[in-house]
Amino acid sequence: MSEQPTTTTANNTKEKKVKAPKQQQQQGSSSGLKQNEGIDVKKQENFSEWYSQVITKSEFLDYYDVSGCYIFRPNCWFVWESVQKFFDAEIKKLGVQNVMFPLFVTKRALETEKDHVEGFSPEVAWVTKSGNSDLQEPIALRPTSETIMYPSYAKWIQSHRDLPLRLNQWTNVVRWEFKHAVPFIRSREFYWQEGHSAFKSKEEADEEVFTILDLYKRVYEELLAVPVIKGTKTENEKFAGADYTTTVETFIATNGRAVQGGTSHHLGQNFSKMFKIQFEAENKETQFAYQNSWGLSTRTLGVMIMVHGDDKGMVLPPRVAFCQAVVIPLLFKDKDNTAVTEKAKEIYSELEKAGIRVKLDDRLERTPGWKYNYWELRGVPLRIEIGPKDLEKQQIMLCRRDTGEKWTMPLSEFSGDSIKMVLDKIHDSMLNKARKEMNERIVVTRTWPEFIKALNSGNMCLIPWHESKAAEEYIKEKSKLESVQSQSDANTGLTGAAKSLCVPLDQSSFPSLEGLENFYPDEADKKPNCWALFGRSY
Amino acid sequence: MSEQPTTTTANNTKEKKVKAPKQQQQQGSSSGLKQNEGIDVKKQENFSEWYSQVITKSEFLDYYDVSGCYIFRPNCWFVWESVQKFFDAEIKKLGVQNVMFPLFVTKRALETEKDHVEGFSPEVAWVTKSGNSDLQEPIALRPTSETIMYPSYAKWIQSHRDLPLRLNQWTNVVRWEFKHAVPFIRSREFYWQEGHSAFKSKEEADEEVFTILDLYKRVYEELLAVPVIKGTKTENEKFAGADYTTTVETFIATNGRAVQGGTSHHLGQNFSKMFKIQFEAENKETQFAYQNSWGLSTRTLGVMIMVHGDDKGMVLPPRVAFCQAVVIPLLFKDKDNTAVTEKAKEIYSELEKAGIRVKLDDRLERTPGWKYNYWELRGVPLRIEIGPKDLEKQQIMLCRRDTGEKWTMPLSEFSGDSIKMVLDKIHDSMLNKARKEMNERIVVTRTWPEFIKALNSGNMCLIPWHESKAAEEYIKEKSKLESVQSQSDANTGLTGAAKSLCVPLDQSSFPSLEGLENFYPDEADKKPNCWALFGRSY
Repeated sequence: MSEQPTTTTANNTKEKKVKAPKQQQQQGSSSGLKQNEGIDVKKQENFSEWYSQVITKSEFLDYYDVSGCYIFRPNCWFVWESVQKFFDAEIKKLGVQNVMFPLFVTKRALETEKDHVEGFSPEVAWVTKSGNSDLQEPIALRPTSETIMYPSYAKWIQSHRDLPLRLNQWTNVVRWEFKHAVPFIRSREFYWQEGHSAFKSKEEADEEVFTILDLYKRVYEELLAVPVIKGTKTENEKFAGADYTTTVETFIATNGRAVQGGTSHHLGQNFSKMFKIQFEAENKETQFAYQNSWGLSTRTLGVMIMVHGDDKGMVLPPRVAFCQAVVIPLLFKDKDNTAVTEKAKEIYSELEKAGIRVKLDDRLERTPGWKYNYWELRGVPLRIEIGPKDLEKQQIMLCRRDTGEKWTMPLSEFSGDSIKMVLDKIHDSMLNKARKEMNERIVVTRTWPEFIKALNSGNMCLIPWHESKAAEEYIKEKSKLESVQSQSDANTGLTGAAKSLCVPLDQSSFPSLEGLENFYPDEADKKPNCWALFGRSY
Repeated sequence: MSEQPTTTTANNTKEKKVKAPKQQQQQGSSSGLKQNEGIDVKKQENFSEWYSQVITKSEFLDYYDVSGCYIFRPNCWFVWESVQKFFDAEIKKLGVQNVMFPLFVTKRALETEKDHVEGFSPEVAWVTKSGNSDLQEPIALRPTSETIMYPSYAKWIQSHRDLPLRLNQWTNVVRWEFKHAVPFIRSREFYWQEGHSAFKSKEEADEEVFTILDLYKRVYEELLAVPVIKGTKTENEKFAGADYTTTVETFIATNGRAVQGGTSHHLGQNFSKMFKIQFEAENKETQFAYQNSWGLSTRTLGVMIMVHGDDKGMVLPPRVAFCQAVVIPLLFKDKDNTAVTEKAKEIYSELEKAGIRVKLDDRLERTPGWKYNYWELRGVPLRIEIGPKDLEKQQIMLCRRDTGEKWTMPLSEFSGDSIKMVLDKIHDSMLNKARKEMNERIVVTRTWPEFIKALNSGNMCLIPWHESKAAEEYIKEKSKLESVQSQSDANTGLTGAAKSLCVPLDQSSFPSLEGLENFYPDEADKKPNCWALFGRSY
């Protein structure tokens, strides 16, 4: 029924590792999580099994009996709601309005833009029956909504006064992929926002493309503590039907794979010509609108988990964590715990009042050690402990989830604000660490031998580039071949073809292109005019 | 392609009716909306055509080329977002958490609870293909998510410590109905929240059923200004698989039809036994959980429009209106409008600062008369006019959308707070008016002749009741027969069978049942033990 992988290693390495704090000599001898409750593989050793364990054992996601579909549990949906809240407020400031178009699309509408439908048709799911009756004609489930929305745009847009039209919807979409599904990253149903705009001029449309791309960057960096590279997609990799596609690319250091994090497309007049989205301009001439579409999906969550998670489980960035701090009083069986309990409650209340998402774990039936593991597995950024000795010394013990760092804070310094500062520091340091890891793995390669060596060591490669579909195919084919022949290990994920990730927008820190040869020998006559980033990707 | 009805009457009654204010002698002679822009049928005369015109011409909704599916435009989606915001915050206070389960359900899971699947199976849409390939087995789109969620509940719930489990999701659902579709009220895809809870005891579950029902009442009354009757459904009308169903019933005075506004179900142990949702209780015994499910949908929007709309178009309750007040400066061609424009902008800024959703309509190319109609059609609750004479007298003119009432307010009394008070007053008076209309149409009927007479005059009927499926069938059949034979007019909607709406929870204002006969003559031996509300419904 379920796709949930069965864990073959019965050893719970977690349980062995746990050190109970010295103060703790209370009920029960076991201090860690039970067999199988913790993560029992290492991120570096078996990444895909690690990922599967982290997302399920942290109660983030569950498998489902329809292949490629997943259950988003509360702690997980909370992250997406945080992204929604931020992004929705930002686009509303820009004048974007929310709408809701149907899930269903007719064959005729879906096929109106030819390049577009070719990009999607193998993955389209079709409804053909209701109850026991056949439908008159099959109806598709949206893989994206361009062809659903644009007939209405043609109707609503008549005059230049109707422009710009900037609409967004938060929906589920369906792409019935047969590639190996990866929770959050590649699934048959996923959740996203899709923005669809129409403008009078290309300039206005262009401007929006990059404004939205900046918001996507902010979602990753300011909320998820994940660094991104902004860039444009090559011809081969752009959205089906777009003039150009911009992207925020993210990077999973563990397996050296990039993930396309969100895309903002300029559609030019491709769709407006097909769907007859025309307006009377100020000068009375009839013109076709310029359009954009842009989308950010729950893939964000997968990237966040893959980037930050560690051998103990989930590591949540504070701004999207369902719980930002957990307060754990160290309670002793057969002793009077009143004073410690009272102080823990005070701390809890203070933080709650300050608007921090906080939990108090004063369960008597669990040991502190078990609780530490429990909350670590779930990724809670900060743990606050208080025991009788702490109380004597008028202090609390703080422990960061991301680094494991422990330190004491005098109660006189404790406040909502001081804890907020700690949380911000955690955010910054998670982001900086991930950025450092990513930047170290961007390697300048001028020749094939340099390229394949860097690639098979888990890097992304910058190459001297001149836009070319042939060059792209060449790199794809050759890297596929040589990755199989190389030492690369299936467990590390260093297999398969490399493809172009993007042409980074900011090329200022890259070496000069002067005098460099085209990376693609067959087009040696074309001088490279930018650096393009290639790599393996999801 | 489109289902949009074509309007056969070309006369635009709207345009003729518009009285331009005396001050207004500016550009252009036409003061009203263009041909076909306004509503050209009366609510009382052709309700369904009126409804269709109101929802489309106000730019609330658009028709779509898949039958029974609709496009929710920004002003409309704003109402639903307002409902979401309120309800989501309230259930989170109760400890409910949001999740997201897949859209898809396997045949096997769907059919686990027999009564349940029988209630839904004719309306289930099936995906059978992806691209050009047949799926191994057809997969259904959720008509509701009991059977999707409860296998996970069985897995997640092991101990009494795992309870209560209270989850909610905001989703689209699909019911491929073949009955006549009515936008918002009955469509093939709609949007809702569905809450699904599991408890240790029936008492806790019962309590939640009614807590949620109260929140539904608050959504209608406090946000949408629509009065409801809380009640329980009869056996015939309860949710498929529930022990009992509670409902908030709403009423459309124009055609005498009730609309089931939202339902909160107690599922007893029916699903927990089928899905094996069991837990170890404190006493170590294994028990089945008690469950509830509850849902409120975008049907709310249809009820709001039907209850409040008038011959000029939409009438929006202030708390959910995309725009609560529109400021219209009366501008004169070839005159210096600076002072009026400045004051209008000041008023606009003051209101915006106060958190009121306000628009300034200072378009020069439109006359004030046209603007009045434009904003009235879209339902904006309050209009604020200011012209040169007003400025001289240091006053503004206010006009309420719901009553048409116009009055002046000295500028010295104008403030964000004074306008908020006006908006609250509008809300209260819309609710009170609708409540009065509804209450006048609840008629006590003790015999069949009284019943059919009241019914065919567009009323809901209270009858002396003793739960009985046979009685229900009797009333359904007989009312269907006699409505066809009666004088009732198809245009008014007074046709078709009556059914039970609910047994109102509050019976205190109804007459004593003492000595009354059972309304259903064949069961004269069963004494009535409550009043039940019957009527025609959507």
